[in-house]
Amino acid sequence: MAVKNLNKISTKAPNDFYLDKDDAQKKVDKLAEKISEKLTILNAQKKYSILVIFQGMDGSGKDGVTKQVFGATHPAIITAVSYKKPSEEEFAHDFLWRIHKNTPEKGRLVIFNRSQYEDILIQRVHKWIDEKRVAKRMAAINAFEDLISFDNNTIVLKFFLHLSKEKQVEKLQERIDDPKKQWKHNDGDWNEHELWDEYMKCYEYVLNESTIPWYIIPADQQWYRDLLVAQAVSDKLDSLDLEYPPLESERFGNK
Amino acid sequence: MAVKNLNKISTKAPNDFYLDKDDAQKKVDKLAEKISEKLTILNAQKKYSILVIFQGMDGSGKDGVTKQVFGATHPAIITAVSYKKPSEEEFAHDFLWRIHKNTPEKGRLVIFNRSQYEDILIQRVHKWIDEKRVAKRMAAINAFEDLISFDNNTIVLKFFLHLSKEKQVEKLQERIDDPKKQWKHNDGDWNEHELWDEYMKCYEYVLNESTIPWYIIPADQQWYRDLLVAQAVSDKLDSLDLEYPPLESERFGNK
Repeated sequence: MAVKNLNKISTKAPNDFYLDKDDAQKKVDKLAEKISEKLTILNAQKKYSILVIFQGMDGSGKDGVTKQVFGATHPAIITAVSYKKPSEEEFAHDFLWRIHKNTPEKGRLVIFNRSQYEDILIQRVHKWIDEKRVAKRMAAINAFEDLISFDNNTIVLKFFLHLSKEKQVEKLQERIDDPKKQWKHNDGDWNEHELWDEYMKCYEYVLNESTIPWYIIPADQQWYRDLLVAQAVSDKLDSLDLEYPPLESERFGNK
Repeated sequence: MAVKNLNKISTKAPNDFYLDKDDAQKKVDKLAEKISEKLTILNAQKKYSILVIFQGMDGSGKDGVTKQVFGATHPAIITAVSYKKPSEEEFAHDFLWRIHKNTPEKGRLVIFNRSQYEDILIQRVHKWIDEKRVAKRMAAINAFEDLISFDNNTIVLKFFLHLSKEKQVEKLQERIDDPKKQWKHNDGDWNEHELWDEYMKCYEYVLNESTIPWYIIPADQQWYRDLLVAQAVSDKLDSLDLEYPPLESERFGNK
């Protein structure tokens, strides 16, 4: 289904949503426990790997949702990678070089906070690359995600945390007012805020051109955002034939 | 031009070739010097990168040609990577994971002794993967080579060292007879030799399905093989607009 106008897609929970904030948070905790258990099996089985991608404007809660959904999982099973401005070495390679290095091996889950998509989002908004390169990079991303899917059983789960422009102002202001959040403040964030409409257009392109579909997650309320992501991850894990491998000697016996 | 039957493509120099062995070797040395000089500029300019791939049956001289053609180049500019049986960690990722990590950064040249193509050669010949995966991997290789080309100015030079079956027997026997070569001997090589026709079929597929064309290099005579590779590398370097960057301050002045 093509995304024509992100501004018309709600960034909030429906008014009549069946859970209130407290109950939703309890459910997220339960789901996080379940996700932890399932990922323990995935780790033992070493058949699948999972790549979780969080994209969204500043303040949409990419770090927050990671903590809520995967905080219960054993650190040996998961890795969270945050992509910032490329290093000199990274910049001297193609844009997927630093991405490919961090893809999960079988039995593990990797979380990308920002990702390969920044190379056709921030770079496109600022016109650091031309439209021809945007299209070639989009095709390269689709080929890359197909590669890790077919050749390494990697499940790619992509979440666009959909925040409203008004809510972002609130979040950015908190980074100025709250001493515990001031380390997150960056004057540049306000410049990006001014480019909101450009970003939304580029996100629409990404959402429409991706072979592997995105989850669009309303992100104005933390509890609703966390619940939807946790539920989606949990559902995906349910759909896999995860099971503990039998004792090694039995496995040989079955051969 | 489609390659229908590798057995019908010569593995030797033409009888009337204009250089004899001695003169050819002298020319290789000269070309190696020139290549070294050009690569020094490429390294200073940091505009292009080069990936050289050598594929060929055992005994076709992948190591030897590397030494002859690139032996004069400063080691800081080049890296030679030899791909053997994947490690456990490599095997837990998609087949291009270990390849992508080693692609050259701008200003450098990387030589692959064997490469991503083994994953649709040895793996196909032994039927470790099915034909559907062969086709998907071939498409992934083409997408990957396109990516490093358009996004990192990487020149991809691929050489198939075309040896005759008879010459391979001679080469493998030398590894048994010559004490200096015995460390290269491996009983398994003779098993692969028995699969010669299967390998040639799979090479024909690779040569025909690659988007970036291959150089097919007759490899029965070392001097002719080295000369053709050196000439091809030299010609490619000539075709690039390599130049030393001007003094830093001038460059700023020109902006």
